[in-house]
Amino acid sequence: MTEIADIEKKDLLYKGKAKEMFTTNDPDIMWVHYMDQVTAFNGKKKVQMQGKGQTNCEISSLIFTDLAKHGIENHFIKQLDTNNQLVKRVKIIPLETVVRNFASGSFEKRYGVKHLMKFEKPVTEFFYKSDELNDPFINDFDAEALKVATEDQMNRIREIALKVNDRLKEIFAEMAVDLVDFKVEFGTTSDGQLILADEISPDSCRLIDRKTKKSLDKDVFRKGLGALVPVYKELLGRLEKVEDVQ
Amino acid sequence: MTEIADIEKKDLLYKGKAKEMFTTNDPDIMWVHYMDQVTAFNGKKKVQMQGKGQTNCEISSLIFTDLAKHGIENHFIKQLDTNNQLVKRVKIIPLETVVRNFASGSFEKRYGVKHLMKFEKPVTEFFYKSDELNDPFINDFDAEALKVATEDQMNRIREIALKVNDRLKEIFAEMAVDLVDFKVEFGTTSDGQLILADEISPDSCRLIDRKTKKSLDKDVFRKGLGALVPVYKELLGRLEKVEDVQ
Ligand SMILES: Nc1ncnc2c1ncn2[C@@H]1O[C@H](COP(=O)(O)OP(=O)(O)OP(=O)(O)O)[C@@H](O)[C@H]1O
Ligand SMILES: Nc1ncnc2c1ncn2[C@@H]1O[C@H](COP(=O)(O)OP(=O)(O)OP(=O)(O)O)[C@@H](O)[C@H]1O
Ligand SMILES: [Mg+2]
Ligand SMILES: [Mg+2]
Repeated sequence: MTEIADIEKKDLLYKGKAKEMFTTNDPDIMWVHYMDQVTAFNGKKKVQMQGKGQTNCEISSLIFTDLAKHGIENHFIKQLDTNNQLVKRVKIIPLETVVRNFASGSFEKRYGVKHLMKFEKPVTEFFYKSDELNDPFINDFDAEALKVATEDQMNRIREIALKVNDRLKEIFAEMAVDLVDFKVEFGTTSDGQLILADEISPDSCRLIDRKTKKSLDKDVFRKGLGALVPVYKELLGRLEKVEDVQ
Repeated sequence: MTEIADIEKKDLLYKGKAKEMFTTNDPDIMWVHYMDQVTAFNGKKKVQMQGKGQTNCEISSLIFTDLAKHGIENHFIKQLDTNNQLVKRVKIIPLETVVRNFASGSFEKRYGVKHLMKFEKPVTEFFYKSDELNDPFINDFDAEALKVATEDQMNRIREIALKVNDRLKEIFAEMAVDLVDFKVEFGTTSDGQLILADEISPDSCRLIDRKTKKSLDKDVFRKGLGALVPVYKELLGRLEKVEDVQ
């Protein structure tokens, strides 16, 4: 493995809606650039926003570091500067794994239940990552038939995702925030290990301030509730004050 | 339990899109009337059709009798006449259980795969029975959270549904027909037993003639491919010729 200090950014491999993924001089390491851009509704709503990349990069770095300390292995290696991280390169399993503590978003709509109905225990869902298909909801049997993931991988993913949920709830509780739901992605490293990847940020979580009941996440943008970056900065500020997160 | 000969039809309890369900003088027995009506797209397309109730009643009676002989307990008690059956009354679990051997219908659409792609092993799906919500696709975790069914019930339902699939494939193979997919419903009897209920008919199966590759099921109506009742009668004729089905 190349020394971290010697890692050099190479080619743009993939430009997503929130991040640019670059190869490096180490085939097992990627360079992630968090862009100053926010999108919603599968890219239909899209805005450039100064400072957005930085807050997400910093929040994600803090959370991944904390999760690793709590035994949840993930792709994060190092934050390089305001908007850039080094991560372990994985082959992404094309599933978005959603964990829900309260009903919101597509759950609320699909089943016609009360907004923020609390679940007795967290609920997990998989969505098949496919922009053309609009990320359809998928079950384990369909995913296996389509060779999206193996039964084993899905069980392992659910297990890890629920551990992530336990720790995130703890962190956000210390910030006086309720974790409504979040989305994570997993992948396999070149030596076959299944690990948590992508990002954990207010772009991929639904978070509600316990006092004001206001959203502290991308719903502010989805629903046009005001400026997004100040909200993300407020969240980062609170996160930096959580004692064992740094 | 009342003697079967003494069962009397009482009140119309529920008028569905294909059947009328009547109470009887025995609280554990229902009288099912198969109507001469066919609907599709959640009732948006609806036509009256002489003879349709009879073929479905007869096909369903033959299949349920056969499944019972093969150890798959179900609600069927007796066919009374052309359009009427007695069945054990159950509390329906509000899940439509779909078993698929080949991709079709909503699967094909949701995942953008090739029509009639063959699965290595049968795939199972649950849909939440709710006309207002348009029977949404549901996973086990959501169904448990919404108290639609317990984990145990869903595992048991899947197990039985796959047994039904094995036997149905055998029966249809003898009729030179491929079983693409089918939908079943389950319920619990007053003494708490989980059994197969509702109907198994060309309304609830996708069936393809192996020689002509033509549909022998409700897709003929959904897609406007011609007269439905002659197709159902053809299917019934073949079913009656299968040696151990009667
Ligand atoms: N460690 C990793 N190795 C390789 N790819 C990764 C890693 N972590 C995340 N990715 C992938 O990099 C991309 C990140 O970019 P971004 O989040 O902007 O994508 P996106 O617009 O959400 O699109 P997508 O639908 O592909 O997720 C995603 O496709 C994600 O799956
Ligand atoms: N053994 C049984 N005891 C009680 N109810 C039953 C039994 N078998 C089937 N049912 C229910 O009776 C109704 C049958 O009517 P039909 O098939 O016409 O309904 P439908 O129009 O398909 O509507 P639904 O969406 O309620 O299934 C269904 O609601 C079905 O769940
Ligand atoms: Mg993304
Ligand atoms: Mg029905």
